[in-house]
Amino acid sequence: MILNDSYTHGGDVYRHRVELDFSANVNPLGTPPEVAAAVAAAARDMSAYPDPCCGALREKLARACGAAAGDILCGNGAAELIFQFVSALRPRRALLPVPSFSEYEAALDAVGCGIEFFPLRREEGFALSGSVLECITPETDVLMLCSPNNPTGVCVPPALLEAVLARCRETGTWLFLDECFLELTDDGAAESLIPLLRPGDRVLLLRAFTKLYGLAGARLGWAVCRCRALTDAMCRLVQPWNVSSLAQAAGEAALECGDFVARTRALVAEEKAFLQARLSALGVAFLPGRANFLMLSGVPGLCEALLERGILIRSCANYRGLGPGDCRIAVRTRPENLRLLEAMEDVLRHA
Amino acid sequence: MILNDSYTHGGDVYRHRVELDFSANVNPLGTPPEVAAAVAAAARDMSAYPDPCCGALREKLARACGAAAGDILCGNGAAELIFQFVSALRPRRALLPVPSFSEYEAALDAVGCGIEFFPLRREEGFALSGSVLECITPETDVLMLCSPNNPTGVCVPPALLEAVLARCRETGTWLFLDECFLELTDDGAAESLIPLLRPGDRVLLLRAFTKLYGLAGARLGWAVCRCRALTDAMCRLVQPWNVSSLAQAAGEAALECGDFVARTRALVAEEKAFLQARLSALGVAFLPGRANFLMLSGVPGLCEALLERGILIRSCANYRGLGPGDCRIAVRTRPENLRLLEAMEDVLRHA
Repeated sequence: MILNDSYTHGGDVYRHRVELDFSANVNPLGTPPEVAAAVAAAARDMSAYPDPCCGALREKLARACGAAAGDILCGNGAAELIFQFVSALRPRRALLPVPSFSEYEAALDAVGCGIEFFPLRREEGFALSGSVLECITPETDVLMLCSPNNPTGVCVPPALLEAVLARCRETGTWLFLDECFLELTDDGAAESLIPLLRPGDRVLLLRAFTKLYGLAGARLGWAVCRCRALTDAMCRLVQPWNVSSLAQAAGEAALECGDFVARTRALVAEEKAFLQARLSALGVAFLPGRANFLMLSGVPGLCEALLERGILIRSCANYRGLGPGDCRIAVRTRPENLRLLEAMEDVLRHA
Repeated sequence: MILNDSYTHGGDVYRHRVELDFSANVNPLGTPPEVAAAVAAAARDMSAYPDPCCGALREKLARACGAAAGDILCGNGAAELIFQFVSALRPRRALLPVPSFSEYEAALDAVGCGIEFFPLRREEGFALSGSVLECITPETDVLMLCSPNNPTGVCVPPALLEAVLARCRETGTWLFLDECFLELTDDGAAESLIPLLRPGDRVLLLRAFTKLYGLAGARLGWAVCRCRALTDAMCRLVQPWNVSSLAQAAGEAALECGDFVARTRALVAEEKAFLQARLSALGVAFLPGRANFLMLSGVPGLCEALLERGILIRSCANYRGLGPGDCRIAVRTRPENLRLLEAMEDVLRHA
């Protein structure tokens, strides 16, 4: 938690009067009803401590992703695993492409790690360039990547990702790869690094139920790592019961949700295309990101003007490397997207 | 979480075939129905991120305990706050009375802290003696106390606690005081240190919803600390969303549960007296602890024999300073207590 109103992320519907939240990147379909039912059922027996091994959940995850259950860690949201990873590693020097999710930097700062920022260039569409390979040296303790990246939605091309992995193996650099939005892309799930991991690899892949299954409030993330020394160290740094029994029940139910993920992807693809067409018609610039959100540029004051109309979007002004004209919107359902577009049209007309 | 079956706490109903769990120290009344209903209601909207400030919950806690909301931290169970406190402080030398809850030592070990153990003596009923004051020196970075202590149920007398606080103020030593079971004693709630804290005091008081409101599965703990430098450091070490919206809803509902706590205390007092009388009749030695559990001694093999009969109790063999004949039982409802006593009688008859 944080002590005061210094919160800088999306999704703060608690200190804003908001009718529509486009600021958090969660599934527009919300929580699957089966998952909500599983949590309500679990709520009838909250007296017992959660399974500290997350045994049933990790077995199901293993079957779903192809990794071994013993290489899977569960966490109180993916965000906990970021801090846990950095605290266990205690790197002295990190390489961090920016703009990206700010909690990487927050976690590195918390352990006093020196950070070399690798700027993603606006003129290159914020794509990671191959020159990152030259920046990975034996002095680089960790490289923290996000693909699709937040807030740009841009993926690291598979060939470059494999080259990064190979280079990290050469230099002994840890690769932290946040794949939390990968399953929300059209076809990105096939690009996961999970099948390429070898025993002992200094790689941690981060995943979340939060975004994919509309579980931001319940908190459930997971990671794959085949380096036992690190996962042991990560576990020593937190309590045994960090994943609630409610979250474990939610995760188990989510993995049995049939075509929910496929339906989500289809909806996101259709609605993203719709939003992109209408944004183009409005003359609003956006990045052709692959995730379930879009980064817009060149409209200073848009966030404030939309908030006056009851719609919260994510200002990206506080992202390293971005500015006041940049913002991020989630891809949501058609009626919601239409309300956003109408409000944007209204704002632009009065600008 | 933990990676394998190295779990050493009570409450592990996942890897044992258990009909009755006496190993976890939770409220025998279970979760209040209003709280379960509040969680089920919150489960209908899990898409939104939790309030990172825990604003409404902290305001209610402040009104309930008399501390200022700004001095209250919430956590993903009290156990998270133990690790968060130790990670933020990074003490070099700790003073730790034993036996006590093993997560203090685990958290200190995780940051490489040297530990001076202060043995609580069996012949003194495991009471903290005044000689602890002489062990608190300017070199002592932190003293970690638990009152009522786990697994003994013994409280630190108020006069000694105040002397410890005064001595810690002299030496600049941090006092970590775990009051998680205090509200489950007959009249211990009045012994809380909360009203004695001064601004800037190097004291952290730990509390939990887990035990008092049967919420071990939902994870919710809190702490009071009037040293802003430390609470700021604690917050920097964890994600903003560590307390789920389900847990926040549970906590808010729990604080409005009318006479639930009073009914709990009355039940625990009555059932503890009943258990003590029957244990005496059986010739089983126990400590006259003040909490909602009893430590038994002198019955080696009791845990294994009860487990064969479907009843899980907590072996205390792995507590520092205790041995194979020591174990802990929760105080539960009359029908459950009767089943335990019958099983114990059966075990003793066949011993």
